[in-house]
Amino acid sequence: MAEYRQIETTKARSFCEAVFHSYGFTPDESRTISDVLLRSDLYGIESHGVQRLIRYHNEIESGMVDPRAKTEIVHETGISAVIDANKAMGQLAGFHGMNLAIKKAQASGCGMVTVRNSNHYGIAGYYTNMAAAEDLIGICFTNSEAISVPTFGSQAMIGTNPIALAMPADPVTFSYDAATSVVPRGKLEVYAKNGKDLPDEWALDTDGKPSINPTEVLNNIIHKSGGGIVPLGGVGELHGGHKGYGFGVIVDLFTAVISGGLTSNYVNITPGLNGICHYFMAIDYGVFGDKAVIKANMSKFLRELRESKKAKGQSRIYTHGEKEAEMMARRINGHIPINEKTLQEMKDIARKQGIAWDLC
Amino acid sequence: MAEYRQIETTKARSFCEAVFHSYGFTPDESRTISDVLLRSDLYGIESHGVQRLIRYHNEIESGMVDPRAKTEIVHETGISAVIDANKAMGQLAGFHGMNLAIKKAQASGCGMVTVRNSNHYGIAGYYTNMAAAEDLIGICFTNSEAISVPTFGSQAMIGTNPIALAMPADPVTFSYDAATSVVPRGKLEVYAKNGKDLPDEWALDTDGKPSINPTEVLNNIIHKSGGGIVPLGGVGELHGGHKGYGFGVIVDLFTAVISGGLTSNYVNITPGLNGICHYFMAIDYGVFGDKAVIKANMSKFLRELRESKKAKGQSRIYTHGEKEAEMMARRINGHIPINEKTLQEMKDIARKQGIAWDLC
Repeated sequence: MAEYRQIETTKARSFCEAVFHSYGFTPDESRTISDVLLRSDLYGIESHGVQRLIRYHNEIESGMVDPRAKTEIVHETGISAVIDANKAMGQLAGFHGMNLAIKKAQASGCGMVTVRNSNHYGIAGYYTNMAAAEDLIGICFTNSEAISVPTFGSQAMIGTNPIALAMPADPVTFSYDAATSVVPRGKLEVYAKNGKDLPDEWALDTDGKPSINPTEVLNNIIHKSGGGIVPLGGVGELHGGHKGYGFGVIVDLFTAVISGGLTSNYVNITPGLNGICHYFMAIDYGVFGDKAVIKANMSKFLRELRESKKAKGQSRIYTHGEKEAEMMARRINGHIPINEKTLQEMKDIARKQGIAWDLC
Repeated sequence: MAEYRQIETTKARSFCEAVFHSYGFTPDESRTISDVLLRSDLYGIESHGVQRLIRYHNEIESGMVDPRAKTEIVHETGISAVIDANKAMGQLAGFHGMNLAIKKAQASGCGMVTVRNSNHYGIAGYYTNMAAAEDLIGICFTNSEAISVPTFGSQAMIGTNPIALAMPADPVTFSYDAATSVVPRGKLEVYAKNGKDLPDEWALDTDGKPSINPTEVLNNIIHKSGGGIVPLGGVGELHGGHKGYGFGVIVDLFTAVISGGLTSNYVNITPGLNGICHYFMAIDYGVFGDKAVIKANMSKFLRELRESKKAKGQSRIYTHGEKEAEMMARRINGHIPINEKTLQEMKDIARKQGIAWDLC
């Protein structure tokens, strides 16, 4: 098992900002990128937090991410836009994309922005919560490198393609954010780092048969040898694997197909080009009536779910976003746990980028 | 096992139209309702087809469905509307709701219509395909009587709450339509009728523990004794059960919460009132660029999925809507199979309503 150290949140944030600034991002851009990364660790989602720094470092080094790229609106109406990210950092494309969707929703009730030619943008829930903070419904999808295998297939054709949605509610915003594959790639990475076997029906080998070996599956994905992650719902159709597969296709429709970008099966196959695509939607739910009443309806329904009868042996039913909000409240003025291996990677980055190392 | 008879599609359609006309629906309304029902049988989805006639008969008899109800727009903007169905037949509320969403999308690029106080509307995919027939993206949700249990719970709080989406493509429209529970209620009914045990992790007993007894689970659901169907993703969080649960909540948000209607946990608990809520959305994907190019992108991606490498022992990968389109092509000018028990129910309805019986 990996060892963790408790690192001061403010120190981790300053370190990330210094790292991104060293690549040529402006101070504002470095703050935005670091805020998205740190938010993931604050939410307790280690896979999408600072443990991804090494990956971003490599993508910037290889030219896959261009720190000087400017995102560009290539098509626009009052309720919609298509953005070409021009290989910008995904977090910047995401921040720009959702801000544009929010502005359109505030003016027209609804904003739909699709983004092509981008990169990894961290957690989708960051962007949906930007909309919720403006008292709007936020929806966000992204495609990613093909890693999920269609039902009855043996070849990864679809990314983990998460779907996220946030809706304001009291006392805590409803915030759904999850891969349409049974798990995201990051979970396999964490199992591999910890040397643990995978649970059944998370992954497939090159024949399309179940595999519990995370290192082998990840290697097969990297080398495009076949196999990959199972869609939400499991292997075959018995438990609804075709449903997770369908949600993955829907994400590629809104991100890649309508933006004219690369569908998951073309992402990260050309050297130096990721080509990831995103979709951002904001809805002013005031177009359906009194917002205070609608928000109160939502809060009541969520409360009823939390207060419904528990399974034997269970003490709590969560609504989506609760765990993350509680974790963030504990961590924001305190510490985040960082894996020793990740810390070593961060230390190496500090040395390469000439940044003082004071995290531990 | 149940016995089936092959019934001429045109005869089954005329019979349904005569039945609904006999309840007081206009000829146009009777045609619409019958078209939704028959489409389900044409697609091969027996559970939502003419086998539901007896249920509709009983709901009309009991006053739950009002054949003279007029659906009413109670709130409207250029891109949105809230409809009160006033206990109308769900198929008529659905037809009206999606037609309004389509008109708004044709005028403004996007139409979002939420409907409260309705009834069962048949297959969600009927309405999304109305939008696809107008070269739009169609999206449709409905809530329903609570039957699905939140993760870590033991009490049904959410309906099967299906999500449907259709997007035009060649040679066949992409048409996703599936419950956000691991299976719909109809699947449990089929296992019960055939005296078979359920697969693991489909259903829960009154303690919230897995149950493989379909008869017991269905009885518990009917008597609100606890337990129910597992959300898509299975029991607990390991395989993503919290994801299916979250999709169910999202469906209640757009159908019931924003329309001011009844959330799933209040559907069908007041005598004579179903209170089901729907959501219809149409998007003119021309707001993102050249429609011919976007449609070609979609067709190409779907073809690549179908042509990707099969798992060992599998000969075909489907895209969503293919199975239904192929079944409909075979049945539309031919016959649909109807269960002997359903035929008997239809014959009883014919007698009660004074309609000539010529189906078999």
